[in-house]
Formats: sequence, C-alpha cells, structure tokens
Amino acid sequence: MEVDWLIHNALVLTLEPGSAPIPQGYVAVKGRQIAGVGQLASQEGVEERGTTAPGCSLAGEGACPTSPGLPFPPPPPARHLLDAQGALVMPGLVNTHAHAAMVWFRGLADDLPLQPWLQDFIFPAEAGWLDANRVYWGTLLAAAEMIKGGTTTVADSYFYESECRRALAQAGLRTVTAQGVVDFPAPGIPDPRDNLKVAAAFVESGADFDPDLITSTIFCHAPYTCGPETLQQAKAITRRRGLPWFIHLAETRQEVEELQQQQGLTPGVHLDRLGLLDELTVAVHGVWLPPEDLELLARRGVKVSHCPESNLKLAAGVAPIPELLALGVRVGLGTDGAASNNDLDLMGEMSLAARLHKVWQRDPTVLPAAQTVALATREGAGVLGLADKTVTLTPGKDADLLVLDLNQAHLTPLFDPYSHLVYAARAADVRHVMVAGRWLLRDGELITLNWPEIAGRIRLESRDLAAFCRNLRSL
Amino acid sequence: MEVDWLIHNALVLTLEPGSAPIPQGYVAVKGRQIAGVGQLASQEGVEERGTTAPGCSLAGEGACPTSPGLPFPPPPPARHLLDAQGALVMPGLVNTHAHAAMVWFRGLADDLPLQPWLQDFIFPAEAGWLDANRVYWGTLLAAAEMIKGGTTTVADSYFYESECRRALAQAGLRTVTAQGVVDFPAPGIPDPRDNLKVAAAFVESGADFDPDLITSTIFCHAPYTCGPETLQQAKAITRRRGLPWFIHLAETRQEVEELQQQQGLTPGVHLDRLGLLDELTVAVHGVWLPPEDLELLARRGVKVSHCPESNLKLAAGVAPIPELLALGVRVGLGTDGAASNNDLDLMGEMSLAARLHKVWQRDPTVLPAAQTVALATREGAGVLGLADKTVTLTPGKDADLLVLDLNQAHLTPLFDPYSHLVYAARAADVRHVMVAGRWLLRDGELITLNWPEIAGRIRLESRDLAAFCRNLRSL
Repeated sequence: MEVDWLIHNALVLTLEPGSAPIPQGYVAVKGRQIAGVGQLASQEGVEERGTTAPGCSLAGEGACPTSPGLPFPPPPPARHLLDAQGALVMPGLVNTHAHAAMVWFRGLADDLPLQPWLQDFIFPAEAGWLDANRVYWGTLLAAAEMIKGGTTTVADSYFYESECRRALAQAGLRTVTAQGVVDFPAPGIPDPRDNLKVAAAFVESGADFDPDLITSTIFCHAPYTCGPETLQQAKAITRRRGLPWFIHLAETRQEVEELQQQQGLTPGVHLDRLGLLDELTVAVHGVWLPPEDLELLARRGVKVSHCPESNLKLAAGVAPIPELLALGVRVGLGTDGAASNNDLDLMGEMSLAARLHKVWQRDPTVLPAAQTVALATREGAGVLGLADKTVTLTPGKDADLLVLDLNQAHLTPLFDPYSHLVYAARAADVRHVMVAGRWLLRDGELITLNWPEIAGRIRLESRDLAAFCRNLRSL
Repeated sequence: MEVDWLIHNALVLTLEPGSAPIPQGYVAVKGRQIAGVGQLASQEGVEERGTTAPGCSLAGEGACPTSPGLPFPPPPPARHLLDAQGALVMPGLVNTHAHAAMVWFRGLADDLPLQPWLQDFIFPAEAGWLDANRVYWGTLLAAAEMIKGGTTTVADSYFYESECRRALAQAGLRTVTAQGVVDFPAPGIPDPRDNLKVAAAFVESGADFDPDLITSTIFCHAPYTCGPETLQQAKAITRRRGLPWFIHLAETRQEVEELQQQQGLTPGVHLDRLGLLDELTVAVHGVWLPPEDLELLARRGVKVSHCPESNLKLAAGVAPIPELLALGVRVGLGTDGAASNNDLDLMGEMSLAARLHKVWQRDPTVLPAAQTVALATREGAGVLGLADKTVTLTPGKDADLLVLDLNQAHLTPLFDPYSHLVYAARAADVRHVMVAGRWLLRDGELITLNWPEIAGRIRLESRDLAAFCRNLRSL
C-alpha cells in the first residue's frame, strides 16, 4: 500500500494512553487518515547517528523507552517524504474555547477590572464597530495565529458565527463552531427574541460544510445573561442532534454570589435543575464551582474547558482543575478570546497550567508534564466529542498533527519530550501542521491563508477601531 | 557626525521613565554607545504608508503618542543602515538571576518535590558529573538561548564561575558574574574551607575582563547553607569594591520556619543583624518574607530579583512583588536556572509575572504591562547597579538593544506595544540583538557563537549525563 506522506526520522509521540516516545519514528498518512506509525531503525541506529539525533527520554523506566524488538511494521512506500530529523511529531493541539474574532481587540484595553473592560471597551466595540465582514477577517487572522502555533482543532464561540465558520473552513482547521446566544442585543442580533432562531438556523446550515471537519452548534453565554427558557431551548436544539453545547460557568466570584443571593443556588445546581447537565455540555472556566458542584459535574459527565491565561489576566481566579481531574471529569485547555489573553497559544496555556496548579496546591507533583500535554491534545478532543475521530496518532484516525523543531537552544539537551513541550517549547517552534491529511503550515509558512492580505486588512481597519474607541472616550 | 549604525523605520521604546513610543523612529549607534534617538517622519507620513506600517498606541492620551512637532533632531548619517520597518526597537532584557550552566539539567527531572529533586538529581549530578569544561559548554548553550530571546545582560551565579565568565565574555553578553559560596563541598571546591578563597580569587581575576561589560562578584547560596561568618566575609569582599552581592532569600516556607525555630528570627532580621543588608545586596526570590522584612529591605535599599516561573514550577510560592514595589523596593525579573524553569526566557517571565500577581491579589490592575516591561529592562539594570551604564535608549548610554518583528499574527493588530510585549510576544520574535554596539544576533542567527558546535557537544555529552542518572537510580 503506497501512502501519500511519510514523515520520518522524527521523535514520535502518539499520545495514545500509556504510549512511549518513539525515537527515529515515522508517521504515514494516506488520504485524510493516519495509515501507520512505527520506527525506522533500532536504538543502535540512533546511537550511531551521534550528535545529530535528538536524545531520548528518561521517562518511565529510566531507560530509552524503545528497543529493537518493538512490534512496528516497516515504513510503507510513500508518494511524498518529509524528513523530520531533529524534530518531534505529535497530534495537533486542541483549543476547547476561543472567541477567534476577538483578535481585533488584542491589546486594545488591558489591566482593567472586568466590568470597565467589558462595559467601556469590549461591549461598545462589539455593538458599534464589529460587523459580519470584520468577524470574518478577524477569524482569518486568528486562524493564521492558531495554525502557526500548532492548533489543529478549535472550538469557537461568538456572534456572526457563520462568518467565523466560513473563515475557519477556508483555513482548513477542524472546528466545533458555536453561535452565541444571549438575552440582550448582540452583534448581528439586534432583537434578542431572534437569538434562538439565528442559532437554530446556524446549526441547520452546518449541512453545507464537511461534516467530518466542521461541527455547528450553540454557545449560551452564561447563566446570568441567558434566562432558563433560553438555556433549555438552546440545549434542546443541540441535544437532539448529539452536539456539544457550551456555556461560560462560574467565571467570576461575583456571578456566583449573585446567583446564590437571588436564587439560593450554586451554578451547577441551577443548571442541573434546568436539565442542562449531561455528557454533551462543556462548562467553560468553572473557576468558582463549589465542591458539591464539582461532584455534580462529574456525575453528569459534563466536560470542562480550562482557560488559565485569561482567568489570570482578568484576575477571575484559579479553577479547581486538579480536583476535577481527581473526580474523573474530562478537562481540555482553551485560550478564550485574545481580548483577555492576549494570544491564542496553547503552548502558553500548557506552561501556565502546569505551573499555576503546582503553586496553588503547594505541590510540585500536580499536573505533571505528560498529563498536561494530554489535556492540550487527547483530552481536549474528548471534551469536544472528537476522540474517536482524531488527536492521537492512531491508524484509522484523521491525520491532525504538528512537527516541532527540536534543534533549538531552549530545547537542548533533550531528556523528556513532554517536559520540553510544557516547560520550554513555544508556538514558534512549530514548523509544519496538518489537518485531516492536508498541510496548513509548511516550513512555518501558511498554505491555506494569505498572510499579507489578512495583515494589511487588519492593520488598516484597526486604525478605524482605534478612532472609534477615542470617540467613545471623548463622549 | 557619522554614526556606525542607524536602525530606522522602527517603533522605538526608549524605556526612559515617562517616555512615549516613537513610531517611524530611529536609533543611532556610534562605537558602543547610543548616539541618538528620534523620529524619521511625521505621523502623517506613517498614515500614508497605509497597510504596511504598524499601528499606533492608544496608551496615554488616547491618541498616537507622537506629533510632527516632537523635538527630535534629524537622523545622522550612518555607515550602516538597518531598516526595521514593521519592527520594534527597545532596550535589551535584563536577567537578574540565572544559573546558566544548569541548562545541562533542563528537563532531567521535573514535577518532583524540592528535596527529592535536589537530593536525588541535581546535587548528585553537580557533584559527580559536572566539571569545569562542562560548565563552560553549558554556559555557552545558555548564552545562545538568552541572546536569541533578547537578553543583553545576565546576572549569573554558579560554581566554576570563571568558566561561566569565560563563556559569557565569548558570547559578548553584558554580565554580572558571581562565584557561588556554600559551607559544604561544591563543584570545584571539594573543601568548603576554600570557598571564600576561591570567591576572592574569582573577584580579583575579573581585572582580566572588559570592566564595562563584565562585573565579577560573589553569590552566597542561602542563609541556611552559609554560616554567619561566611556571609559576612563574602559581603566584605564585595562591599569594599562596590559590587552587588547575591543571596537566595526566603525561597521556601520550610527554610523560613526553620530559621524562626532555631534562632527566633525572620530572614531579613537575621541578615540585618549580620550587617548584610544594603543597597548592594540583591535578595533573590523573597517568596516568604513577612511584612516587617519587606519594610526592612525597603529601608536598607536592598534590591530583589523575582523569578516567578521557577517559583511556580517548584511550588515554592508567590513573592510579594506588588507590596515590595509599593514600598519603593527596586525589583528585576530573573529566570533562575533551567533545571527549575525550564528555559531562560524573560518574555515568559514578563507574561507570567503580570498575570500571576493579578490573580494572587484578585486585582487585574496590578502589574500593568508598561511597568512589567520596565522590570525586565530598566529596573533590572538598576537591581544590578548598571542603570547609569545601559538599558534605556538614551544618548551616551551603552547600546544594548533588541529588534523585535511585529509582522506576525499573534502581534496583530497593534494598539499598545507594552501590552504586546507582556501578553503576546515571545522570545522567538526577537530578530536582532546588540550589546555595547556589537551585534550578537542578526536575522535570528547567532554571530558570536557556533550553534552546531555547541549543540553537538551538548547532545553527545547529555547521553553520558542520562547514563549517569540511570546508574544513580539503580544504586
């Protein structure tokens, strides 16, 4: 069987549970799928290559985790070869929560309390400046950044989401794209009575897109911006189609206290009484969930998206991620929007998550490197309901992968690739990115997107946005 | 007056207190010094450039912070031009605390409690595997990483420090290099009775190096590893020469509690009674300093080096940096060693510091972006006693600077350059680095160091280190 691509000579991480790194490995891709994973040479072969080969892992048994006897088939013949000598191949990164088009507001207003930030900058700019076309171009910019940083799947939640979907499809990213719903006027929905109609139409029109790459669903902003009926109707639309449903939950202490005062309920119990908690619900943030809510989420099979950079920048708080993981809750990492982050870089989220929970728990063994990499890949795919389709390098799954250049000072020497991915690597180390067998990035260059065109458009219009904000402040 | 280099068309941040970003700016360098800073064109000129020019800042008065009337002289004639269109020029970054040669141990042992990490891995490897030559090569690797990430000054503290100094001088970095002192056997000092003799000789031999670039001084490891006499004698050697003196202070809660139990003293009071606190003392970490120690440090003019990535990874704790700043204490950022970080990346330290203290204080206005950039540059130079010499772009100061590529997805659009530096930029965005008028990095390529030679050496010997550690564990 001839395959389309053979990526060889790489250190391969399959991210299959319990798998060991494969030095001198290969990944074969046929059509959109992984056709095979294996090893080219024995470990002796690696030793003979001397100084040009990357080192091997000390993880696990305290010895290089491979041997000549490993049961790998020989590499298949291939139409195209990619020599990944000195590089690492692994599944692409999964961003379980983003508002891609908010890259427009990157650095527009920082270091402010949440309410002035929202009320004085973000909401007015969304209401008075953003339009469908700008959402489209912003999402293209976000896609460029995400692809360059090794992201292959993104769960995007915003308004004008059909424009986001069009841009993400053009970029070639795998996406779970969710139309935003709130019970007040929103971008593209001046009358909130239309919010569910717009969302339902968005879900229906998903049929126009490749169903293997693009999932179209709904994001309800939060329990404090969506009434019970809105939440229930939105959930019903997605539940009957087996779609994930997103909601910001317990991001700030204030919203949790207000719910307690008004209804005497915790956020989890509030949603549970409305019948909204199940295995298709993705709770985003979950910073201020009390212990009883954590157990409730675990019982109901709810998934959680953890966005530490945004949570810290807004001083929202630190989500109880180790506790959720201990309860068996499936957790993925997310960037949130670039207005509160200010990038869409999952390498940064890994680095921060692994460090933050150590100091928060006063325990340096919390969130070890390999587990953190799993959150950014395999577990993220699980959160989005895509675990059967992609994000381990397993024959038969879709080929979503990245190739990362290890030949760099900050990644030298190499003892444990998981450690480097979490504690030293950066988005800029990603050289090639493939989604479903299609290259989106080669040698650091975007394949599906025209960067000069996107950058020119964004820079030109960002002047208009700056003028809009100056006018706001002079009112 | 003809200058040697004119870096032009850049967005210039001088980092002088109160200065505004200069769009379409230039920096002139003559010999080792800044010869001039100014603006090439009026803001109208920038507008005409349309989509290729970076945006302008909303900071300050809500308008672009420059005007045709700014009192800049025209750019001088120059022997060499660097067109920095679409880039930012700013002072180089200052790393106020590193153990450069510990890059050997990058990722060798992670996610462990402090004591097993030290006792089972780091101390045995330092005692049984490290030697003078390996310290030299490790420091070259560290220098390569630091230069590529925009660091122009590093305060390095380790053993075999004369080898570190040789490597850092070869790299062309500005450095405050400090021989380590402990009251037990250390690398290169099998008999601790020689520790001060070695340190004094190291300081004396500093005369062999360019005094404008290289300061040779002493680092006492900690109050719990150095007795009172050792501390006092080491301080006396450095004080009489007007040199900064470094000490790890209050890194872990355990060491502070032990000091309290044994002597009934706080760390600050302990050092103060020994006469060790003055404007030349640099206290590293300071995580567990009680409020009375913070005031004591402020009164004595002690400087503080803040290493947040290391503090989090080891779960040491969070240093009271906003409190120290409020008291007027001069604070710089540091990476600590790559064994506990695991990189030497000040962009990462800025990003983490600005976020961490927001969530720790539950206040998103803490450590705003511009202040955080100042900590990594101007304030760091102040911590090291170099503020008169470098690290603002001020005519007459040494030209230590970096040029950062803004033409990237994650830095688009641009409203506030300080925001981007802290919340979105990465070490890999640095394209050119100059120290004292000499280029160390051009177009991302190292000028003073031979990367293939360094990488080959480190990779080959890291196999030997891995074998050494496997043998340790099988004992």
